[in-house]
Amino acid sequence: MPEQLSDIQQAIATSPTPAAEFERLSRRRQREVFYLLPETVRRSLVEDLDPDGLREFVRRLDPDEAADVLELTDESTRTDVLRHLDESRREKVEFLLEFSPESAAGLMDLDYVTVEIDRDLEAVAQRVQRFEEGTGRIPLIFVTDDGELAGELPGQALAMVDDGAEIREHVHETPAVRYDVPDEDVVEVFREHPESSVAVLDDDGTIMGVIHAEDLLRVVEEEATETLYEFTGVQEEESILDGPLSKVRYRYKWLIINLGTAFLAAGAVGFFEDTIAAFTLLAVYMPVVAGMGGNAGTQSMAVTVRGIALDQISLSTGGRAVVNEIVAGAANGLITGVLVALIASVFNQSPLLGLVLGVSMVLNLVIAGFFGTIIPLLLDKIGKDPATSATIFITTMTDVLGFFIFLGLAQAVL
Amino acid sequence: MPEQLSDIQQAIATSPTPAAEFERLSRRRQREVFYLLPETVRRSLVEDLDPDGLREFVRRLDPDEAADVLELTDESTRTDVLRHLDESRREKVEFLLEFSPESAAGLMDLDYVTVEIDRDLEAVAQRVQRFEEGTGRIPLIFVTDDGELAGELPGQALAMVDDGAEIREHVHETPAVRYDVPDEDVVEVFREHPESSVAVLDDDGTIMGVIHAEDLLRVVEEEATETLYEFTGVQEEESILDGPLSKVRYRYKWLIINLGTAFLAAGAVGFFEDTIAAFTLLAVYMPVVAGMGGNAGTQSMAVTVRGIALDQISLSTGGRAVVNEIVAGAANGLITGVLVALIASVFNQSPLLGLVLGVSMVLNLVIAGFFGTIIPLLLDKIGKDPATSATIFITTMTDVLGFFIFLGLAQAVL
Repeated sequence: MPEQLSDIQQAIATSPTPAAEFERLSRRRQREVFYLLPETVRRSLVEDLDPDGLREFVRRLDPDEAADVLELTDESTRTDVLRHLDESRREKVEFLLEFSPESAAGLMDLDYVTVEIDRDLEAVAQRVQRFEEGTGRIPLIFVTDDGELAGELPGQALAMVDDGAEIREHVHETPAVRYDVPDEDVVEVFREHPESSVAVLDDDGTIMGVIHAEDLLRVVEEEATETLYEFTGVQEEESILDGPLSKVRYRYKWLIINLGTAFLAAGAVGFFEDTIAAFTLLAVYMPVVAGMGGNAGTQSMAVTVRGIALDQISLSTGGRAVVNEIVAGAANGLITGVLVALIASVFNQSPLLGLVLGVSMVLNLVIAGFFGTIIPLLLDKIGKDPATSATIFITTMTDVLGFFIFLGLAQAVL
Repeated sequence: MPEQLSDIQQAIATSPTPAAEFERLSRRRQREVFYLLPETVRRSLVEDLDPDGLREFVRRLDPDEAADVLELTDESTRTDVLRHLDESRREKVEFLLEFSPESAAGLMDLDYVTVEIDRDLEAVAQRVQRFEEGTGRIPLIFVTDDGELAGELPGQALAMVDDGAEIREHVHETPAVRYDVPDEDVVEVFREHPESSVAVLDDDGTIMGVIHAEDLLRVVEEEATETLYEFTGVQEEESILDGPLSKVRYRYKWLIINLGTAFLAAGAVGFFEDTIAAFTLLAVYMPVVAGMGGNAGTQSMAVTVRGIALDQISLSTGGRAVVNEIVAGAANGLITGVLVALIASVFNQSPLLGLVLGVSMVLNLVIAGFFGTIIPLLLDKIGKDPATSATIFITTMTDVLGFFIFLGLAQAVL
């Protein structure tokens, strides 16, 4: 029965006994599905697998994958599993376990050989052969020049062995990163040098491992959904497959913070209670002013967050962008403000209310443009993720200031 | 002067004469920076470069990159540039130009050779050598068995040439896609088989080209920021570097739609104008009920959108998730509802208002959980992106229903 990976994922994640579901799979399927599971499920799987099952599973993984799995276990399980690996593999896994899984070293694997640039291709072929015999795996070939990384030799260059060609002619540049840079910075390096692999170096410039483009895809995908999570204040670990209890635990704090900011908006309205009592129609139009400001602000934020992610903007170079957003906000405020003013003038036969609404709309969309751009730039400047809590910041600003402007103007004019 | 790529990007994108800035760069820099620019800027660059500059730029690109650039030009420019390429390169570019840039074929390059599985490594070495002499580029080696794709031969296997080893022993499995599948589906395939490359096949299963992991990173990154854009209703093409006029053009339609839905919320409030006139405090608490509902709903949406993206959930299997979100919504509603009720009871000395607020909060967070989960699942089911217009849907629901519940309850009780 050729089941879909997505069905298997869901079966495991929603099962009361995920470990039992997992053990039922072929080794190959286990390996395929493991990384696709939410982190909470991965963690509970690793906890619940019986020792034999876990040992068997880890034994078949690459050292870097094995290290990722063992990151999730407790100390004694880890020691037990490691003891059952053969020596060369155990050494590699232990080496990799020393590094943070979210650093360059946490992404790298150890399938590489190094050759000096003045050797000939014959020598490279021998190194590769020996590596493959020893490990059953095919190494990437790094070339060094006086011990320093000079680049990568594509395996296909070995086709020229018989020509007496020199290594030098075939070396391709390889980007390199230090072992302790965060995985997101590796993606940055890769974005500027989209070769197929990145060398990982230690403090002295010695090669420690290699990161392949395919390892980075997972990082980019995680980063991607992380942005949406941060934007809406959801915690990174939460998955759609979590139970209601976890969901409450993940979210209640954020909602309480949100409650605090909602009271700021309520406070702004409370300031004008008498005005509203005299002119109830204002309460009807309040959601229009607030809603438009919130939406325009989140749009500016989304655009700014992307600009920061793609390295197109920073606080120091962002002046022009802020001005552009303010001008665009004023223009969009004018367009929608005229519409609202017309509607209020016609339906409520109050051109004065229409005027107040129109002016409030322009001002609130200017506010939305300004804060929607400046908040992510400031967050980025102080080293935070620019999308963090974006929606709560911006809706607080547009709600509080929007209500003040709208109700304040109304109080003055009506 | 070793300028940062990000500075160069910004200099080009914000320059009144981007083409002049671009021409000032070295060929290498041009190639590095081009893809990092927003699409609108890329397009205007290609339009503004003088014919010589454009020809020179395209001449140095890989055929698949050249095709991407020529996609952006008008017919006559394209013909002109193609005429100036040497024949073998022109043929490749023309071939690639036949396909949508957002399909598998649009991502592939043509640097591969194929060998039958019963040949020996010596024969492979010759093919590779000939390819490299002809093109100056290093090919990927695909292995076919009776004309059908059997897998990939890592170049390093050529180290075993002298052993008389057979190709068969060294073939690695390669995932394959049809040339016309959308680029996002290629990412799916890759996610399940994270090898370093994907073969692109035509209708008959003949190999047409190869996609590397590094080509997919760009797709994933674009998809990533697209989600945030869709979530907030920003158009895909918009960049932070656009001028205010483009920004207005990109956004005003969405804001007008948003205005329509804001009026729905206003309509709900309008229904209870008399109640508000009698009890103005209701207007003060309106933003609290609406704001909490909107935020809780966007959180559910973010989690559901990620679950769909990672293939963990669909409409048919989502029943449990919907129930979980509803239960979590009720629980979070209870937590925040009790807080709000206490505050209203103490500050406004109206336990009855507190009760109305508390109950409204629970109900509105249940609504948020339900719609926040079901809307993206439905959008996904009908083939739309699940994040499309997410915020507008959910805030309309929680505003309209939230106001009805809150003000309706108040009317009945107070």
